[in-house]
Amino acid sequence: MKPIRSSGIDRRALLSTMAALPAMSVTLLPVSAAAQTPGAPLPSWNEGPAKQAILDFVRATVDRSSPNYVVPEERIAAFDQDGTLWVEHPIYSQVVYCLDRVPAVVATKPELKNVEPFKTVLSGNREAIAKLSLPELEKILVATLTGMTTEEFQAEARKWLETAKHPRWNRPYTELIYQPMLEAMQYLRDNAYKTYIVTGGGQDFVRVYAEKVYGIPPEQVVGSAAGTKYGYGKDGKPVLTKEPKLLLNDDKAGKPEGIHLMIGRRPVAAFGNSAGDREMLEWTGAGPGARLKMLVLHDDDKREYAYGPAQGLPATKVGTFPQALYDEAKKNGWNVISMKNDWKRIFAFESEARAG
Amino acid sequence: MKPIRSSGIDRRALLSTMAALPAMSVTLLPVSAAAQTPGAPLPSWNEGPAKQAILDFVRATVDRSSPNYVVPEERIAAFDQDGTLWVEHPIYSQVVYCLDRVPAVVATKPELKNVEPFKTVLSGNREAIAKLSLPELEKILVATLTGMTTEEFQAEARKWLETAKHPRWNRPYTELIYQPMLEAMQYLRDNAYKTYIVTGGGQDFVRVYAEKVYGIPPEQVVGSAAGTKYGYGKDGKPVLTKEPKLLLNDDKAGKPEGIHLMIGRRPVAAFGNSAGDREMLEWTGAGPGARLKMLVLHDDDKREYAYGPAQGLPATKVGTFPQALYDEAKKNGWNVISMKNDWKRIFAFESEARAG
Repeated sequence: MKPIRSSGIDRRALLSTMAALPAMSVTLLPVSAAAQTPGAPLPSWNEGPAKQAILDFVRATVDRSSPNYVVPEERIAAFDQDGTLWVEHPIYSQVVYCLDRVPAVVATKPELKNVEPFKTVLSGNREAIAKLSLPELEKILVATLTGMTTEEFQAEARKWLETAKHPRWNRPYTELIYQPMLEAMQYLRDNAYKTYIVTGGGQDFVRVYAEKVYGIPPEQVVGSAAGTKYGYGKDGKPVLTKEPKLLLNDDKAGKPEGIHLMIGRRPVAAFGNSAGDREMLEWTGAGPGARLKMLVLHDDDKREYAYGPAQGLPATKVGTFPQALYDEAKKNGWNVISMKNDWKRIFAFESEARAG
Repeated sequence: MKPIRSSGIDRRALLSTMAALPAMSVTLLPVSAAAQTPGAPLPSWNEGPAKQAILDFVRATVDRSSPNYVVPEERIAAFDQDGTLWVEHPIYSQVVYCLDRVPAVVATKPELKNVEPFKTVLSGNREAIAKLSLPELEKILVATLTGMTTEEFQAEARKWLETAKHPRWNRPYTELIYQPMLEAMQYLRDNAYKTYIVTGGGQDFVRVYAEKVYGIPPEQVVGSAAGTKYGYGKDGKPVLTKEPKLLLNDDKAGKPEGIHLMIGRRPVAAFGNSAGDREMLEWTGAGPGARLKMLVLHDDDKREYAYGPAQGLPATKVGTFPQALYDEAKKNGWNVISMKNDWKRIFAFESEARAG
C-alpha cells in the first residue's frame, strides 16, 4: 500500500497552526473542505441517485414556495461519525486512543502492571489484544477515559491526535475523513442547516477535534457520555472530574434518545452507516415532509475498506451493516451511498488527477 | 393588588398566533423584546453598576483590540430561569403545572383517587397542598411528567401555558418574564453571544416555550432531564416515552455538570438569583479573561417580590438567596442586581409612563 502524497495541503503546518490556535475561528476551517469546494456543490460526488437525493432534499426544504419548506430553525442534520465521517477500520480510533493511553495509566498506577487486561495491552501482542473480551475492553475504557479532570482529558486527547497515525495510510486519524461528507455538511450549512454529530463514540473525545476537523462546535456533538463531578482542585479552582458513570449510551435506540436529550428537535436529515444508526434514521424519517435518510455502504476495499455483511460484503464486528438494514433501507426509501460508485474522491489528500 | 393593564400588546392575538404557528421563525420573536428595544441597549435598566457591568463586559469581549477579546464561537452566556428570567413566587410555575395536571392523571388512573398525595391535591385545600413533603411532591412530578410520549407531553404543557394564569397578575406565566433580562439576552445575542438557559426546572417543560418567549431554541435549553425510551406506537411509528429516571439534576453542582454535558464549553457570562446558581457562577468565573457573573436580588415587594434571606430580606424556600452567597458575590466581584434600583421596568406589560 503506497502512501498517497498530499496535494497542496501542508499537513505539518496545518497541525502546528491547530496546536498554536486552539480557539481558531470556525469560519477559517476546515481548510480542506473550504479550499477544495468549487462553485458547484458536492464536487467529490459522482452524478447518481445519492448526490441527486441530497440536492433534491435541500431544494425541497429551503425553497419557500415548496410544500416541504422547512423554517431555518428546524433545519437539523445529524451525522454518525465512525464509518460515516471518518475511517473506523480496522478498529474505532477512540479504542486505539484508549489502548495507547494504557502505559501512561499504568505509570501512575503501577499496581495494574501485572493485572489483566492491562498486562496484555502492555505486552504489545496484537493478536492477544484483538481477543480481549468486551468486559476487559470496558475496564480499559474506564481506566483511560475517567478519573481525570475534563481539562486534563482534553489535553491528553489533543496531544494523541497530533501524533498518532493510522497504520494503513500513516497519517493522523483526523486526515482520514471523507471529503464527500465534508462537502455534504458544508452544503447543508450553506443552506442554514445546523449540522450535528450523533455518535456512539465518546462525546468528550469527539469534541476535542470536531470543530477543527468538521466545523462542528462542541455543543453540536452528541455522543456517549459519562457523568462528571464538580469539585475543587488543590489550588481551590473548580474542576469537573470524569466519572465512570454512563449517562448516555448513544448507539442504536440511544441515538434518538440522545437527540431528544441534547437537541430537543427531530432531525430532518440523518446520515449513518451501520446497525447503530437504524433507530436514528427511523426517528428522522417519522417526521412530516421531506426527509433525507442516508447510509454509507463500505464497498470499496481498494480506496478504503469493504464490509457488510450486506450485499455479500465481508462480515465485520466494527460498523456492521447487516442485510436486514439494507432491506429496511430499500423498503423505506432510504438512500444507500456506495463509496465505490458515489464518491469520486474519498480523502482530501488524494490528488485531483487520481480522483478524476 | 390591582392588575396592571397591558399597553400595546394584544395578548390574546399573540397567543393565538403562537398556537397557529408552532414553528414561527425565531427572528420574529420575542415580539415584546424586539418591539420595545429602542436604539440604546438595555432601555429598561437604570444607569448604575449593574447596567454598566454588562456594557463594559460586552465591549471588553467583542472589541478585537481588547486584551479580553473572545472569539465569537466561545461567546456562551448562561441564564438560570426561575427567578432570573421569570417570576418564581409564590411557587415554581412548573410545580403549578404538575399540580394542575393531577386531575387528568387521576382520570386515567382512578386507583390514585384516594391515595396520597393525590387525594390532598384533588381536595384543593391550598394549605394542605403547601405542606406536602418533598417525597410526596416527587410522586406528583413523576406521575405528571413521565409515562407519556415526548409529543403528548409537549401538547399538554403547551395547552396549559396558553390557559393557566398567575394568581397575582392574572396573566399567563409566559408574560411574567423580566423585560430587563430579555434586553440583556438580546444585547448579548446582538454581539454574537449564544444565549443558553441553564435551569433546575425540567428541560422538556422549558423547551416548550423558550423559543417563543425568550428567543432561545430547544437545543440551547439545559435543564433537569429524565431519560426517554425509544419504542413504537400502536401505528408502528417510533415514539420516545418519558421515563422516571433522572439523568441530570441541573441545580447547584449539577449546573456546571450539565453545562459540560450539553454545551461542552465554559460560559463567559452567567446570570442567576439563588444558591442553586452558585457553582455555575464559580465555574464561569474560573476561566481566563473578562467574565460576567450576575445575581438578581429580589428586593422589590411592590413591583414583584422581596426575599432572601440575604440583606435582611424575608426568608424563603423558593429561590433562596442566602447571606453567604451575597458575601461570596461581593468578595469575588460578582454583580448583584437590585430589582428595585437597577430595573426601570420589570414586565413588558407595564406602561411606559409607569416605568419612567
